[in-house]
Amino acid sequence: MNIYDISRRAGVSIATVSRVLNNSPHVSENTRRKVMAVIEGTGYVPNAFARGLGLNTMKTIGLLCPDASDPYLAQALTYLERSFRQQGYDCLLSCTGKDLRARQQGVDLLKSRHVDGIVLMGSSFIENDPADNEYIREAARNVPVVLLNATFPCENVYGVQCDDQQAVMEAVRYLLDSGRKRILFLYHSNNYSGRRKLAGYREAHVQRGLAVDEKLLCFFERDKGSVHQVCDTLLALEKEGLAFDAVLTSEDILSVGALKYARATKRRVPEELSVIGYNNSSLCACTEPELTSVDNKLLAICEHISATMIGVLEGKEMPQTTVFTGELVKRAST
Amino acid sequence: MNIYDISRRAGVSIATVSRVLNNSPHVSENTRRKVMAVIEGTGYVPNAFARGLGLNTMKTIGLLCPDASDPYLAQALTYLERSFRQQGYDCLLSCTGKDLRARQQGVDLLKSRHVDGIVLMGSSFIENDPADNEYIREAARNVPVVLLNATFPCENVYGVQCDDQQAVMEAVRYLLDSGRKRILFLYHSNNYSGRRKLAGYREAHVQRGLAVDEKLLCFFERDKGSVHQVCDTLLALEKEGLAFDAVLTSEDILSVGALKYARATKRRVPEELSVIGYNNSSLCACTEPELTSVDNKLLAICEHISATMIGVLEGKEMPQTTVFTGELVKRAST
Repeated sequence: MNIYDISRRAGVSIATVSRVLNNSPHVSENTRRKVMAVIEGTGYVPNAFARGLGLNTMKTIGLLCPDASDPYLAQALTYLERSFRQQGYDCLLSCTGKDLRARQQGVDLLKSRHVDGIVLMGSSFIENDPADNEYIREAARNVPVVLLNATFPCENVYGVQCDDQQAVMEAVRYLLDSGRKRILFLYHSNNYSGRRKLAGYREAHVQRGLAVDEKLLCFFERDKGSVHQVCDTLLALEKEGLAFDAVLTSEDILSVGALKYARATKRRVPEELSVIGYNNSSLCACTEPELTSVDNKLLAICEHISATMIGVLEGKEMPQTTVFTGELVKRAST
Repeated sequence: MNIYDISRRAGVSIATVSRVLNNSPHVSENTRRKVMAVIEGTGYVPNAFARGLGLNTMKTIGLLCPDASDPYLAQALTYLERSFRQQGYDCLLSCTGKDLRARQQGVDLLKSRHVDGIVLMGSSFIENDPADNEYIREAARNVPVVLLNATFPCENVYGVQCDDQQAVMEAVRYLLDSGRKRILFLYHSNNYSGRRKLAGYREAHVQRGLAVDEKLLCFFERDKGSVHQVCDTLLALEKEGLAFDAVLTSEDILSVGALKYARATKRRVPEELSVIGYNNSSLCACTEPELTSVDNKLLAICEHISATMIGVLEGKEMPQTTVFTGELVKRAST
């Protein structure tokens, strides 16, 4: 028996069950009676909403993070932990890696620890094969799930994200407007966010009536995208005769590799080669020249994740999808 | 009533109480009886050792982290979480910031959540004023405390660290051996680790019979050590007539600022200026030229932290201090 079962038996949405448990005024007396009858009939109190009935919960949010040493996720972890703590919630952390089985175990583990809600950090949690996402649906039957930078159409699952497609489109348009014609796109991931970025690259070309040369799309395995490996790959592409006058990357670290390639081949940046990164991380000030990059609004996203989660736990009506717009921060590499 | 009280009443060490509770063979029958009499008299079972009595604990380690977005600590967080999880322990994370009150609250919070042990991440947890460290003693009366990169002389407190003094001495000697005479030392912190690094700088000079010019010691407040602020500070020092032919820094990010200064003044690195960082972080491959840096053995330290903690929880005799030796990783900046 869980929230999902109660909502199904009462014939109302999970949000309505939550509102009833939190004594929200936005529920009819009839609905309230129906829901309470189911709950009283089963004797079961869903943990996440026990507080609404005057019971104590652990006031803990489970954070599932693929890799806390990834700079983007490390920053997100700090923002999320601080934001939840300010609202009186602790964070239980589980780093799952990229492996699907480990993720399912991570969710199981957090459930066994009676967390009030789960945050899945990063769109790598959304698999292409729907069957592989069953663990998210299963988790959402017990507690609210909020996704960092992803969406997932399922009741009790919420997403707060940056519009990566739009942000990449803006970056491509900026390069095309400055006279660049062949933009090499380096990317790290085929997950939801990665696909959105790639779609932005394509869409910006289509809108200008330009064909996309597939040879300009260059994928790096996660463990093969170090600065030196990117540099070596670009040297090899050049040797094969591939021409490009700009590099746009799905993460700043890949752009650092592109700048290293430029130095190795004595191509001047930005005169002969423009480079744009993504994330607007602290790396941008470390390179020479400094790196133009897309600010994907991570702080605002994390603050909205905690606000969304706590709003749901308090039985408020919360948006299932929240989308921020990225912003191109121009530095010396363009 | 806590472990400390039991050990005091039984007149034995905390480690002995732990050994009794874990049925260690290394306890005399007489001691065992004494300890069990105290425990049975009070009816109290210290949470951290309940497992030794066949009871279930939460199998959770509390991690107190000043700032999870600091690259060194973010990496440590990943290593610690993975290492504890492989041993069947979850990690509860609390990011305290640098504020003393927040730390004490963080420890209280972890205690209230019945963690089996606490890891204090980084030597910034050790204050110069002994009275300010009372919260660590208090925590250690309840559960084992393991310090990342620090030591603290107190029962039930363990430390796993890199010998930062030795590592900085090696770096200074390397610079002096290569003909450098005036080594600017940029540092971020006056905490235990920071003071050890500074002591290494001084000691290396003393050993060579060289006086230390205090003007070459340059402190940066934590929030004023960005790449650009470091660059501006070095430009100002040069304008004031301060001469230096090498820069050694307590963290890689400060060295990135030094490289930016070198570029701004067209000083060639390493021909006219040698630069050495600390932490051997991923930044080292991002700069131009790439950065020579001290590898302070973070992975090994984190693995020993989890081994030490779990050993203590299992009633094994564990070393109170474990020290690794740093290693200078040479790249193009020297």
